[in-house]
Amino acid sequence: MKLSDIGEFGFIDRIKKDTIVNPASVVVGIGDDGAVYKTTEGKEQVAVIDTMIEGRHFIIGKTATWYEAGYKAVASNLSDIAAMGAEPTHLVLSVALTPQMDAAQTDELYRGMKDICRHYGVNILGGDTVVSSEGAVLTVAAFGEIEAGKAVLRSGAVPGDIVAVSNTLGNSGAGLDVLLAGDAGYAAMKKAHAMPVPQVELGRLAVKYGCHSLNDISDGLASESNEIAAASHVDLILDKLQIPLSDELRRWCEVSGKDPYAYALAGGEDYELVLTMAPDDFYLLKEEFSSLTVIGKVQAGSGNVYLKDGHHTQVLAPSGWNHFSGGE
Amino acid sequence: MKLSDIGEFGFIDRIKKDTIVNPASVVVGIGDDGAVYKTTEGKEQVAVIDTMIEGRHFIIGKTATWYEAGYKAVASNLSDIAAMGAEPTHLVLSVALTPQMDAAQTDELYRGMKDICRHYGVNILGGDTVVSSEGAVLTVAAFGEIEAGKAVLRSGAVPGDIVAVSNTLGNSGAGLDVLLAGDAGYAAMKKAHAMPVPQVELGRLAVKYGCHSLNDISDGLASESNEIAAASHVDLILDKLQIPLSDELRRWCEVSGKDPYAYALAGGEDYELVLTMAPDDFYLLKEEFSSLTVIGKVQAGSGNVYLKDGHHTQVLAPSGWNHFSGGE
Repeated sequence: MKLSDIGEFGFIDRIKKDTIVNPASVVVGIGDDGAVYKTTEGKEQVAVIDTMIEGRHFIIGKTATWYEAGYKAVASNLSDIAAMGAEPTHLVLSVALTPQMDAAQTDELYRGMKDICRHYGVNILGGDTVVSSEGAVLTVAAFGEIEAGKAVLRSGAVPGDIVAVSNTLGNSGAGLDVLLAGDAGYAAMKKAHAMPVPQVELGRLAVKYGCHSLNDISDGLASESNEIAAASHVDLILDKLQIPLSDELRRWCEVSGKDPYAYALAGGEDYELVLTMAPDDFYLLKEEFSSLTVIGKVQAGSGNVYLKDGHHTQVLAPSGWNHFSGGE
Repeated sequence: MKLSDIGEFGFIDRIKKDTIVNPASVVVGIGDDGAVYKTTEGKEQVAVIDTMIEGRHFIIGKTATWYEAGYKAVASNLSDIAAMGAEPTHLVLSVALTPQMDAAQTDELYRGMKDICRHYGVNILGGDTVVSSEGAVLTVAAFGEIEAGKAVLRSGAVPGDIVAVSNTLGNSGAGLDVLLAGDAGYAAMKKAHAMPVPQVELGRLAVKYGCHSLNDISDGLASESNEIAAASHVDLILDKLQIPLSDELRRWCEVSGKDPYAYALAGGEDYELVLTMAPDDFYLLKEEFSSLTVIGKVQAGSGNVYLKDGHHTQVLAPSGWNHFSGGE
């Protein structure tokens, strides 16, 4: 059954189910001109927005299923909320779909969105559905809450901080290459690309333990660490060999002759967190969240990032993705 | 200069200026992973989202300039906020643009968005910019505030209410046809299509005077009045000859042989408001906002709309836009 057969209102009825997982704060959900929700006294609101375009950010049947596309469109937004230290609460979404799309495919798309929302207790408050001629365009605007004055910005790094990252880096970019090549195996890297995990719990712990600066790694460590250095007016000194890599990434790079650090530094879409904080606070945090690795330190400077590799140290340019550049 | 020349960060620097017009509630604007803002005690939050696609919702050089496309992408969202009775406060936006687009054109796009935001005191908190291969996709998610418990829904109409609409209907749909035909003249209809006015002031007055149900007319009066009837479980009886039409629309329909009521009932994108309320309250409201016309009444029933035309009365189907249907 095509979307053009069921019509817009049939479509809305079809997707409305299971959108509110946390009803206490919702006054009006899907079905009116706008959604109405309550905020919590003493908290500030965080708002983010992110778009994924079929054929550019995902290729159905190759780099993603419809379920995964829906899951990831929400995950990238929750990652931005986590990177402020906030708790995600609600989202609204706008979905452009072709009239030829099968209703069973849209069910899968929404199942992916609803599954990740249910996991993180996030309500789907409403949305817009429009016709696209060229392919799906998925835009999610997500909201979260944080204790007033506690949002963790890029600009708070101070000399003496350590620099640390969560889990391992590079899996998503390498997973994309494996998916594009159609290679078997490497399940963890493929999953890192198709269904990334937003680090919501770590974002909240970063607030609890007084983290000074925080970014999610959506565009590669090189780009994100440069954003912290520039915004905080400090230098970051990173030790390349300390950057945590997965065994799967190392193995695939050996087989394929690729450089695993190129993925870690510029691969993009890992959605891990990079943070800076006082060493004492960091070790307390690490007791509660062990998958953290120190990869460098902050020192006085003028906003540059340096990468140490054995005895060599060089400036690390923000060579992550640049969305408007040609190749991408 | 093309977008591909200035890069994503050059683009963000270019548009960041004049995004915060009402700084008191903004903690963090553009430039971090997410924006942070404060809400007002005793108020609830309203969230809406709306997408416009180049070639489908607007054709540059024919139905819109880039300035107008930006203006309208915000206007349609503010109209949804107004249709809940809320005061718009903030927005985030996601813009997909082709790398070939000229930076001067994006400046015009953002000038349109900023002008309407400045007029209504709405802050642009942040956004996402992605590459599109096919054309521009403009998604705006807007927020507003309303006194707790006071949002005006579609579902509140009660027997005995009058039905009224603001200003005149049909201008936008007719303006689109004039623009598509490339005809000279009819400036008001063209403007109604390209730069619609969200009825924010009237939405707030609807709350003040105890309006029972409220919708904005984005998909034609037939569709919107049916939504109120269905959600409120009442019948609406509309008098066709009371529907307010502009002189310009009447004149153009005489020349072109079109039916002006077809535009008023199913033309779409007028962004006027349709409301129901107790007659006494309505006349108090009308003293403060005179551009309102009674077009019918609410009576007990099962969710239908009837259209009286002289001695004939017929069921009015929700024949407004249906976004997934073929022709559109």
